[in-house]
Parts: sequence; structure tokens; C-alpha cells
Amino acid sequence: MLQFHGVFSVIPTPFFPDGLIDHESLKRGVELFLGAGVDGLTALGVTSETARLNDRERAFVLETVLQQVNGRVPVIAGSSADGTRTCIEYSRTAVSAGASAVMVSPPRMPKLNSEAILRHYRTLAEAVDIPVVIQDYPPVSGFTMEPSLLVRIAREVPNAQTIKLEDPPTPFKTARIMEQSEGLTLRILGGLGGMYLLEELMAGAAGAMTGFAYPEILVKIVRLFRSGETEEAANIFYKYVALMRFEFQEGIGMAIRKEMLHRRGAFAHTTMRAPGAALDATTKKALDRLLDWLKKEGSPWI
Amino acid sequence: MLQFHGVFSVIPTPFFPDGLIDHESLKRGVELFLGAGVDGLTALGVTSETARLNDRERAFVLETVLQQVNGRVPVIAGSSADGTRTCIEYSRTAVSAGASAVMVSPPRMPKLNSEAILRHYRTLAEAVDIPVVIQDYPPVSGFTMEPSLLVRIAREVPNAQTIKLEDPPTPFKTARIMEQSEGLTLRILGGLGGMYLLEELMAGAAGAMTGFAYPEILVKIVRLFRSGETEEAANIFYKYVALMRFEFQEGIGMAIRKEMLHRRGAFAHTTMRAPGAALDATTKKALDRLLDWLKKEGSPWI
Amino acid sequence: MLQFHGVFSVIPTPFFPDGLIDHESLKRGVELFLGAGVDGLTALGVTSETARLNDRERAFVLETVLQQVNGRVPVIAGSSADGTRTCIEYSRTAVSAGASAVMVSPPRMPKLNSEAILRHYRTLAEAVDIPVVIQDYPPVSGFTMEPSLLVRIAREVPNAQTIKLEDPPTPFKTARIMEQSEGLTLRILGGLGGMYLLEELMAGAAGAMTGFAYPEILVKIVRLFRSGETEEAANIFYKYVALMRFEFQEGIGMAIRKEMLHRRGAFAHTTMRAPGAALDATTKKALDRLLDWLKKEGSPWI
Amino acid sequence: MLQFHGVFSVIPTPFFPDGLIDHESLKRGVELFLGAGVDGLTALGVTSETARLNDRERAFVLETVLQQVNGRVPVIAGSSADGTRTCIEYSRTAVSAGASAVMVSPPRMPKLNSEAILRHYRTLAEAVDIPVVIQDYPPVSGFTMEPSLLVRIAREVPNAQTIKLEDPPTPFKTARIMEQSEGLTLRILGGLGGMYLLEELMAGAAGAMTGFAYPEILVKIVRLFRSGETEEAANIFYKYVALMRFEFQEGIGMAIRKEMLHRRGAFAHTTMRAPGAALDATTKKALDRLLDWLKKEGSPWI
Repeated sequence: MLQFHGVFSVIPTPFFPDGLIDHESLKRGVELFLGAGVDGLTALGVTSETARLNDRERAFVLETVLQQVNGRVPVIAGSSADGTRTCIEYSRTAVSAGASAVMVSPPRMPKLNSEAILRHYRTLAEAVDIPVVIQDYPPVSGFTMEPSLLVRIAREVPNAQTIKLEDPPTPFKTARIMEQSEGLTLRILGGLGGMYLLEELMAGAAGAMTGFAYPEILVKIVRLFRSGETEEAANIFYKYVALMRFEFQEGIGMAIRKEMLHRRGAFAHTTMRAPGAALDATTKKALDRLLDWLKKEGSPWI
Repeated sequence: MLQFHGVFSVIPTPFFPDGLIDHESLKRGVELFLGAGVDGLTALGVTSETARLNDRERAFVLETVLQQVNGRVPVIAGSSADGTRTCIEYSRTAVSAGASAVMVSPPRMPKLNSEAILRHYRTLAEAVDIPVVIQDYPPVSGFTMEPSLLVRIAREVPNAQTIKLEDPPTPFKTARIMEQSEGLTLRILGGLGGMYLLEELMAGAAGAMTGFAYPEILVKIVRLFRSGETEEAANIFYKYVALMRFEFQEGIGMAIRKEMLHRRGAFAHTTMRAPGAALDATTKKALDRLLDWLKKEGSPWI
Repeated sequence: MLQFHGVFSVIPTPFFPDGLIDHESLKRGVELFLGAGVDGLTALGVTSETARLNDRERAFVLETVLQQVNGRVPVIAGSSADGTRTCIEYSRTAVSAGASAVMVSPPRMPKLNSEAILRHYRTLAEAVDIPVVIQDYPPVSGFTMEPSLLVRIAREVPNAQTIKLEDPPTPFKTARIMEQSEGLTLRILGGLGGMYLLEELMAGAAGAMTGFAYPEILVKIVRLFRSGETEEAANIFYKYVALMRFEFQEGIGMAIRKEMLHRRGAFAHTTMRAPGAALDATTKKALDRLLDWLKKEGSPWI
Repeated sequence: MLQFHGVFSVIPTPFFPDGLIDHESLKRGVELFLGAGVDGLTALGVTSETARLNDRERAFVLETVLQQVNGRVPVIAGSSADGTRTCIEYSRTAVSAGASAVMVSPPRMPKLNSEAILRHYRTLAEAVDIPVVIQDYPPVSGFTMEPSLLVRIAREVPNAQTIKLEDPPTPFKTARIMEQSEGLTLRILGGLGGMYLLEELMAGAAGAMTGFAYPEILVKIVRLFRSGETEEAANIFYKYVALMRFEFQEGIGMAIRKEMLHRRGAFAHTTMRAPGAALDATTKKALDRLLDWLKKEGSPWI
């Protein structure tokens, strides 16, 4: 059975310069993440530009990832939708295709509220047999779920025991949720590009689910931490967080991530689908300098 | 050629209690609006719960409307999408199906900005041959387009000369845009359920595009106004705006509209797709009272 | 003891063209509202441009209102502040000056949450001896208080039993709160310029607290409704809601209100403090027409 | 004449446990920042909890800072206000007290727009004789100023040539503004706790204005960078950005900063004024670990 701890990488969607999905790059991307030793993969996340895919493309991306992974690790499928019905439909498609879990953000709508969110998750969970990961990333849904609501969902919806927590301050919020979760097997996975990974783990998080382009670094940190070697985990984290921070810049972060996956040989192109912002020379130069520094510091990964 | 003045009704999507699209009710809805003498119909608007339809259902709704209208009036198809590519795809599907124009809101994304919006409309307009109606409804896109930006889009994108203006105060904003539109054939259509229709017309609007369930009233007001009979238009508007205001309540407005279309015999059911809020007894009772009053006042329509 | 039912008018702050507070106009404003038979007055509300007053001016406005009212009706003082300490300070100043209650919106801050809001109201209520009216107007605080939170505040803070409810759909929300308020003497006052007054009363509201420039109309509607003459109340409301709707336009509403108070002889000038938007010719012309129509309809008030 | 380059530290306001301003701690705070070699100090910034001070306290804090600095460096005074008039008043008070410049965020109001913002800055600049620093921090004003607007303000308002830029991605936005600023002496200062300081400098920023509790590190980085020793600047930045990132956590960052200033001996207490969030054990423990690591790494500063 799927254990939600460790590192789950959210895989971006590579495109050709004309905007079509680059199937081979996607497969190479899967191999890059698997080669890094991640515990699972997440397809169709926010960082996958899923909002810019049509329904056929969504299915195509998910199938490609599942086929390429071929059971080596569990695959989680993003299936958020503004309508509960569409969310269930996406989720069932994911189950049929072979996904191990779905990840769902609250539905967007005017005057969204706690009761509607709870109903959304409950209805979804009754319609599918696999675990539901609750994505707590307010910019996507426009709604902030307080710790008490997240714990209530977990109490009332048995197969929604995992939270991808991305509402800062995340270590603080992780601690607040864990305090209220008595009797539950609730697990929290950090996101935000890994920017607060160590502090989230110290606060009780079980791992991370994010798209950072050097997943081997996240894997190393989480393994060391979970085996009690906190200091070693910290030594690595504090050094590489400069890169996580740089990658996870609002509004340009996805483009930086694609640039990094391109440099690592996985993605043939760095194309973002419009209207996504492309990388500018200023950001590229800053990335060059940061990667050079990490190399000079003797990084085994960069 | 399509003239953007008069009344364009945005048709809601009727569902069976189990959530499936109610094809027959949709056709009766079309007939109700056409019977009211509207100048055009808009399918797949925000009020059509389009965000809760999947791609196949979108196509099905549009085709049903087009088939039922059968050329009697132009049909405008909502084709907003978070990605430019998907927006073009939706728009082309609409063209192929026979739509006379598309209506598009700015794409949602973090750090959306004026340049990205302009690019979105320009790229779309180059890809399709029919007029593009710019939907200016900030709650949908999360972005407020100032008059200068709307005029700039109209200047730079020749087939985007119509704005569905729903950013209050709409009469004020209409006047500001018209002031800056010298040399353009820019037309503004009011929305917001008709709540400021008369004042928008007085400010220079060419008509309305909204989903008010008594379109005959909007038609009457706009015709009177456009033929110079402002006072007669006003007499009707001031009386019925009580109903427009009631219908257009944030968060519950779509449910009220469906209830009214149900009472008028068009929609068999009032079902909203989850997570949309259903009508409560309090709101229903208030609607009863208001409709009764209009009847007692001798309304020819209610 | 102060009973929170009936009509409480929120009085705007009149300025001279150079921006100074117009003391005489303020006193005439008080008389206009008192002459209309309101049950109380609210000073330093949002509509009073309180955010554009300094601390001395706040005190001056409140004292002027209290002095002019001279005990004829209770006066409620807005005392919202971003800091709990400042809120208490404003509230104590209000108590000393003779205010009968204070009105407070949740404090603004990044990552505001239910617990912080509850603490704010509890700390405030412990520091002052007069009733606290909870202002539920999300645009001011950036936070939406769900019915369960509002009821919880009322349960835990004995002198916070009144809500000025301005989060649409207000009749719907009023009903939801009343359902959960068993055992409490919780009272809800509508706002939003009176735009949903009848429907709010039907849903259980005890009255209104708003700044509509024809308070006599609100007084008449509330009195009729509370004495069981709902139909008569409705007859008046449905007719005059055209004006309430027009006055309460987002972004320009305060300027319209001042124009109306000027026309009624209370305010010498219509000046808004910068950066508030002044009335434009378009809006003025629309107001002329609407008032003319009401006159022609034989209004006893216009 | 005041040159806007280098490091300007925004000084937090220290409180006693009962919430009163701690005068001695404030003076020690000034000395800590001056001892670090900063080029200027900013009083009454967002991080100073200015929103939780009353008018007298604002004046008291500013005077204390000015008196303690005693001309050793220029002092900039935050004077943002929702009303233009109050903003001018705060600014004039600052001039009289001896401030070298004021820092102002756009005024908050419903339907804020570019023209109103431009007018606000122009009116302010005409009323005071000292430079105006434009604070571009959207969470405070609720408005995002695009590069074109910021450049337009600088073109039309001669004494507003400095921007405190805090709208991510800041290096990207810095580059966009600099591209459009031909002929201007526009200077950009980074903020956000220094989290992107190096990248902002590389993009053309002239320095930083922020409240990071180890200003000597910012000073070192900016001096090295400005003297052409980019690599040395980078070596320091990449290492210490782990701390800047940790300190600048949304919703808890001010509390972390106070904790650090307390540990450094400047602030006697870590009290935040309500409703500000206090530090929890989880965050404190994470801070301990991070500071320990920096010590072990042989930091000359920690």
C-alpha cells in the first residue's frame, strides 16, 4: 500500500517550440526523477502547466508517465477541477490509467466556503477507491484552509489523510495541524520547491512533494532526516536552499525549472505554453552564477 | 455582418438532478430567449457553469444551441481558457461549429500583467477569423483591466472591438473608455444581470450581454432607448431593476436564474452542478414575493 | 439599554473644497438623519472616509456627532484598527465621549485567521463596557468570516451580539447565521446601502445600518415590516431599491451619497478626500434621471 | 545630498511585554544597525508594525530614531496613508523632525487605479521637498504596479526616483524597469528580507532596503558587489541566504526578526503587538539549528 513519506516529484510538462507536448522529453524527465531515487511521481500538478492542457493532453501526459514509470514507483495524478463532477471524472480516468492516488485542490468558485470544500472532498472520496492528497496552495483555489478545516476533512474523509502543504509559514502550519491530528494518520508533505523542507520535516512533515529540478538533493535530505541524521540533512539543506529559493520564484519559477531540466539533458526545450513567462537573460545569468558556485563548492550533484 | 448592439442573452446550462446535461431543457431555454426577441445568444458563458463542464460537454452544449438557433440570430461562444493554445482551440471549435464570435476573459495565472493579456488577445485574434468579445469581469481572471488597457487592446487587435463590461462602477467605466476610443468602432455591452443597464446605455453602451431570465424586459428597454425613447426605457428599467438586482446576487445568482427559468417552463430542473450553491427556502420565499409584486403591478411579462 | 433593531444611519464626513472637515455640514447631516426618525447613528464608518482622517479628526467628528445628537438617539462609533491596542484605544475614546457602542471590523494583517480574529474581539470586549458590533464587510479586512465563526464569536464574547452583515448574498447568510444561533440574542443588521433590506428582514435581520441618503425610506420599510405589514414594506422597498442600487455603486458610491446629501441641503459641498473618486457628469446625469422619475411617481420623500 | 544606494535598514519597533514601546531597545536597535555600517535607516516601515501604532506613537518612534542617529546616516520615514492628506501630513511631520526622505506605498481603497496612484504621488511630491521612495509591495496596497506605471511615476514626479521593489520575481522586474528608464536616474532598492539581494544587484538594483537582523551581511554583500567583486559577494550571499529566507517567512517573519534582535542584545523583548503572531517552539527550534550551523561554519557575524 502507498506510503506517503519521502519525496514525490511533480513532473513538469515539456513542450516543443511550437507548443506541442514533447513525448520523449517527458520520458527522459521521468527517468531523471526515478534515477534520483524519488519515492513517487506526481503528474498533472500545477507546475506541470496542467491548466494549459486540454482533456486529451491531460490523459496523454498521465499515460506517458505511467507507462514510463511502469510500476517502479507509485504515480499520483493531479485531478483538480472547478466542478466536483469533472474532478471525479479526472480522478476515475487516473484510477483506470493506473495512478496510485489523486491530488486535489479545493474547487474555485465565487463565495467558496468550508462546507462546500468538505462536500467536494467527501463526494470525490466516495467515488474513487484510491487515496486523495489535499493540495493546500491558496493561490490556486483562492481559499485558505485553516488547520482546523484540514483536520476536519481528514477526520470525515477516511481516504484523505495526506496534505500537500504550501500555505506559508509552512513549518508553523505543519506544527499546528499535527497538534490537532490526534488519532489520525495524517501525513503532511511540504511543497514550495523545497524552500522550507528541513524546517517542515522538523515540524513533523513526512516528506516533500514538489518539482525541484535536482530531486536527488531532496531525496538525500529526507532520507538523512528520517534516519535520525538531522545534522547531516541540515548541512546539505542549508547549502542547497539557495538554489531551491532561486528556482521557486513566483511568476518565473516554472521557466527556471524547465531551464534546469534542459541543462540536465532531460528536456529538449525550455518552452512554456503561453501566456507563461519565458526566461529572460537576467534570470539566466543569475542561474549560471548560482550553479557555478555550487560546482565550485564541490557539489556531487550539480 | 454581426453588429454588437442590442441584447445578447447568456444561456445557462440545465442539468438533470443527477448532473447530466438536460438537452431538451437547453433547447427550450434557447426558444425562451429567442421568443423574447434577443439579438443574439451567448453559449458557454460564466453563468453557463462552463467551468464545471468537460471538453466534450462544452462541444455538446454549443452544438445544441447552434442547432436549435439554426441561424435565427448570431451565437457567441465563450472560449476562455488559462492557456492561449487551449483558448484558440476552443475558439476554432466554435468557428467550425458555426459561432459568429467568441467571448474571452484574460487567462488566469500568477503575476498576470498587461503585456501578457495583450499578447493573449493578439495571438487569439490572429488565429481565428471571427470577432473576439473581451470579457471584463475581474472575479473570473483575477485581473482588473483599466480603461487604457482595454482601449489599447482594441487599437492593436482589429477584431476585438467589443467589450462585455462587468467591472463596477460600469456606467462610470463605460464613459471613461468611450472618451479614449476616438477613431475606434469600439462597442460596450453591459452585463451584471442588467443591474445598471439604463445607466450603461446612457453612458454610451451599445446594449447588454447577460443571462437575466426575463430577456424580453432587457429587449424592451434597449429598443426604447436606442430609438430615443429614454423616458419610456427608464420607466420600465426602474421598475424591473428590483428583480435584476435580486437575481444577480453573488454566490447564489445562478441558482436564482435557474429557478426562474424553471418557473417559466424552460428548464425542467433547477439543478446546479456541485459545488454550486442550491437555492434555500429563504431566497425562494423572497423571490416569490418579488414576482408576486410585479404581477400585482400588472407586469405584461411576469 | 441599547436595542439593536431598526435603522442606524452611518453618517458620511463632509469636507470643504480644500479638504478640511465641514463642521456645520456635519451637524446638518446629523439633523437630516435624526429628522428621518432613525433609531441610532453610526459615526466613523467606512463610508465616513474614516481611513482618510487622522486621529485628531476622528475624535473631532465623533464629538461633533455626539454633541449634535445630544442623547436623542444612541451613537455607535467605528473603532476598527489594524492593531488590537489601537482598536481598544479608539473604543475607549468613544466610550469616554459618550458612544453607546463600537463597531469593529477584523484587523487587517497578512495571514489573518479565525483564532486571531476571535482573540481580537475577545480582548476588545474585555477592555470596554459597551456593546461591540461586528462588521462583516470582507473588502475592508480582506477576510471572510463564515457563519460558524460569527456565531462562535457571539457565543464566546458576551457583548458582541450584533453583526453588521455585508457579505453577499446577505439574505442567504443571514438565514445561515440565524439557524446556528440558538440560545443567543444575536441580531443582524443589513448594510450594503439597503440594497437587500427587505430580503434581509425576511431572513431574520433586525434592521439596517447603512448610509443611504434617504434614511426616511429605510425607516418606513423597517417599521412596516416589524409591525407585520410586510406587503406595505415591500411595496415601498421594491420601488426605491432602484435608488439604493444606484447609490451603492462600488468605487463611486460615497461620492453619489455626498451628492444626494448636498442636494438635500445637508452638505454644503460634495468634496471627497483624495484619492477618493469624484462624481463624473455621466453618473450625475443618471442620478438626475432617477430622482426625477421618483418625483414623477409621486414620492413623498424625493 | 541623499544617495539611494547601499543598505538601508528598516528598524522594527520593540515593545515591552505589556505592549508599550520600549524606548531603550529602540535606541539599541539603532546602534546595532549603525554599527553594522548601513548607509541609512528607515523608520516606520511595514516591518515596524506601524499599522499598530497610533499617531503619537508614530511621532515618538521617528523622533527617537532621529535623535539616536543624530545625523550619522540619513533616516527615511515611512509615511503611507490611505488618504493623500494624511500621507502629506505624516510626510511633513517627518520633514520637520529631520527625515531625509519619505517612503510611501500606494493608498488603499476600493477600485484603486493607475491614475489615482499617480495623482497621489504627484500631490505628495508637490507638498514636500524631500525625496519620495515608492514602495512597491502589493500585499500592503492590494495593487500591483507594473513596470510601465513605476517608470511613468518617475518620469512625471521628479522627486520620486527611488523604488523599494518587493513584487516578485524582483530580479526580473528590476530588469524590466531599468530597460524602460532611459534618461532617468531611477534607482531600485531590493527588499523582501534580502532573499534575492544578489540577483537584484545583478539586475541593476542599487542596494537594499529591508529589515534583516544581520545588516552587516547585507552591507558586506552590497559593498563587494558595488566594487566589482561579484564573486566574493556571491560567496557570502549564497551561504547566508538560508537565514534571510528563514527570517522572511510570511506571517511569522516579524516575530523571527525580533527574536534575532533580542538574541543579538538589542531588543529586551520579542513582543509583537496583537494581533501579530508570536514565535512558536517549532520555529524557534528551527532558528536555533540554522544559527548553530552558521556558527559552526565559522561565520564572522553569527
